[in-house]
Amino acid sequence: MEITTPSLVVDLDILDRNIERMASAARVGGFALRPHAKTHKCAQIAARQLAAGAVGLTVATIGEAEVFADAGAEALFIAYPLWLDEGKQQRLAKLASGGTVQVGIDSAEGARQIVGTGASVVIEIDSGHHRTGVRPADAGALALEARALGLAVDGVFTFPGHGAAHDAQLDAIAVRERAAQDQEQALAEAAESLRAAGFTPTVISGGSTPTAGLRREGVISELRPGVYVFNDALQVALGSCRLEDVALHAAATVVSVPAADRFVLDAGSKVLGADANPWAPGFGLVPAYPGSTVVQISEHHAVVQLPAGSTAPQHGDQVAIIPNHVCNAVNLANEFVIVQGGEQVDTWAVAARGANS
Amino acid sequence: MEITTPSLVVDLDILDRNIERMASAARVGGFALRPHAKTHKCAQIAARQLAAGAVGLTVATIGEAEVFADAGAEALFIAYPLWLDEGKQQRLAKLASGGTVQVGIDSAEGARQIVGTGASVVIEIDSGHHRTGVRPADAGALALEARALGLAVDGVFTFPGHGAAHDAQLDAIAVRERAAQDQEQALAEAAESLRAAGFTPTVISGGSTPTAGLRREGVISELRPGVYVFNDALQVALGSCRLEDVALHAAATVVSVPAADRFVLDAGSKVLGADANPWAPGFGLVPAYPGSTVVQISEHHAVVQLPAGSTAPQHGDQVAIIPNHVCNAVNLANEFVIVQGGEQVDTWAVAARGANS
Repeated sequence: MEITTPSLVVDLDILDRNIERMASAARVGGFALRPHAKTHKCAQIAARQLAAGAVGLTVATIGEAEVFADAGAEALFIAYPLWLDEGKQQRLAKLASGGTVQVGIDSAEGARQIVGTGASVVIEIDSGHHRTGVRPADAGALALEARALGLAVDGVFTFPGHGAAHDAQLDAIAVRERAAQDQEQALAEAAESLRAAGFTPTVISGGSTPTAGLRREGVISELRPGVYVFNDALQVALGSCRLEDVALHAAATVVSVPAADRFVLDAGSKVLGADANPWAPGFGLVPAYPGSTVVQISEHHAVVQLPAGSTAPQHGDQVAIIPNHVCNAVNLANEFVIVQGGEQVDTWAVAARGANS
Repeated sequence: MEITTPSLVVDLDILDRNIERMASAARVGGFALRPHAKTHKCAQIAARQLAAGAVGLTVATIGEAEVFADAGAEALFIAYPLWLDEGKQQRLAKLASGGTVQVGIDSAEGARQIVGTGASVVIEIDSGHHRTGVRPADAGALALEARALGLAVDGVFTFPGHGAAHDAQLDAIAVRERAAQDQEQALAEAAESLRAAGFTPTVISGGSTPTAGLRREGVISELRPGVYVFNDALQVALGSCRLEDVALHAAATVVSVPAADRFVLDAGSKVLGADANPWAPGFGLVPAYPGSTVVQISEHHAVVQLPAGSTAPQHGDQVAIIPNHVCNAVNLANEFVIVQGGEQVDTWAVAARGANS
């Protein structure tokens, strides 16, 4: 199978297996699954997640919500502390008039933004990633402020992004487990804070692909993993998935072989993204060349260094390269090439590509 | 001026000043200017560069060449060792039938790709960046192979990308000067190799924004800088430009103020790119907050850490953030918001966005 390169290729069987595995984990584990659609930005993949039992979708922007609402999704959680100009306020109100829309808040100022749009709110908690979110103990106070503004408060959510961060003292599984425990503890404390303020939270929502497969204590009602549909080089390095669970790669062509132990592919940072992998060297993973490292990435070049004794590919050979961070790679592409059993069977649009606002 | 965020904003006066400054340096320095259009991907900006005296445009892909040919550019250099499937071969031939098209080669295999397309070739030299390119002394041999295939060989080119790489032993200006010297020496040697093989090179072409302003010895006939139209946080750190020469920023909104010394903007790696800056910490530059660092970037969040004693902005404030690497930021946007004197005067399409093949 020859594909015009560079292209993002999705293996349909692996994709479906990843979707079913997470759906099954949700059924067995007794949590609702609300996958984050920012990873794939694709109506066909969202439909498969919903058909497998997802209760709705998570998105990051109003623009993403619009794409998936147009594709038929009826329950959307914009897990982001939106700030609304007039245009965005109208767009959010239109979305909320057509289905169930929840929006994240982490301040009273942010809560005021949502008033009059018809969306309900979910309070964001900082469980250790130190990005956005209030302290767990402050959830009840913010919920009271939101209620005083007339907003419906559905519960609390957090993103344990520190479960992928490098820690020189710990291995990857220990970092993931610590983040999962932080998440559980923060959500438990935040839910208790809500209850103490007179609320009955229906949403107690956590992330993420690196933590989704780890043991939980029953606090969490919902998980929002995103990357699991495709996986990527970071997830492989974290041990969140096996190499054979990676459903997406960039098909690339060898355009230069400047040395016996080095070759250059035509997929660079405008295809793969420029993300570093905090757990592994280089800018992507080249499974056909074990021990290789993508030592340098430019906009249209990936320079692959081979270990001693390897044989470099020939000019014109097609080589698969797995992005470090698949969400950013997807956002660079207009479409996926869908393959099954080694044959191209379809192309799917990355419908929400660039929907950043 | 309120702009829907996140958006990429271009200051027209600074843009025009940057274009004129480089054009003037070319006139005074006696070199042809062939700006790399991968930076801006924008027909309106290409037109301004050509009007200021550029002899043509440099591009990285056939897709970019098509966009600028459609916009009226008649002389295009695809500075990339293309590998052509059947579709790409036809597209290249069509381009070459409509204007002057040059293509980079760094191997006999790559040269064979260009046969029959009507494009001429320019031999790529590795001047120290160790990406693509042959050794300077091998230029003549490859030129003879290309000529034996029936190709017209116009000359040699290199990209001194190591002029932006970090070196713990040197400061930025010394790194830039070393790369400029490497470039000059490699091109001189390569041109001599061509002459010894019986060629008369008309193109002796170098990069780049970090090296363009440095002293040259008269070897180089043409320069291909790209970033200079906008500049970015890397160029500021390298000393290739001043902060007031940066023509592009992302307009972003403060969506969260989780601590007195930290705030969060709605422009993340899906707006700015995920590029690190080898010469400065963080994922972008926030000029309104001197001493601040963008300590964390997610797809839709930039977390800005303030120095002690600063006052954080308010929720909803608009704050400008300068990308580390503007080329990748531009490739994420569908359009530029064009401002002049603080007022929005236009929007320009990023016409070649995503034109990776």
